[in-house]
Amino acid sequence: MKYIANITVMPLKELLDPQGKAVSGSLHNLGITGIQDVRIGKHIILQIEAPDEATAQALAQESCKKLLANPVMESFSIQLSAGA
Amino acid sequence: MKYIANITVMPLKELLDPQGKAVSGSLHNLGITGIQDVRIGKHIILQIEAPDEATAQALAQESCKKLLANPVMESFSIQLSAGA
Repeated sequence: MKYIANITVMPLKELLDPQGKAVSGSLHNLGITGIQDVRIGKHIILQIEAPDEATAQALAQESCKKLLANPVMESFSIQLSAGA
Repeated sequence: MKYIANITVMPLKELLDPQGKAVSGSLHNLGITGIQDVRIGKHIILQIEAPDEATAQALAQESCKKLLANPVMESFSIQLSAGA
């Protein structure tokens, strides 16, 4: 069966996010006020072929831990859904 | 009032995603099989101070159009929620 994993990888809350700070400054320079904080991370969509949902979830989790997220600086969350 | 905008910016489906292709190859090299396709985009969290939800939504939309997403190559979606 096919599954779609929507993975969000964000910098940990405790850490400074320089990319977000830069965008925050740029928004102000563009005249867009009212935005107080910006944090930028990655969004990754995996198409997984697996026999069941538990296997697909395990595959997504393993991918995050081994390659997609750096646990020292980032946290990740996985949302799994059945694919078309 | 405070609002949190969760914005996902993804490369358009019609376009090749070289970063995703590279990650897909790396996953296979790591011995993680069963992942057929990878697409990588950005996840952006904005903290918005606005009088009402419509204003916050408009601010997030404007930020995406002017700075966060490149409409030639990327599509974006905004999910707004009331902040703490």
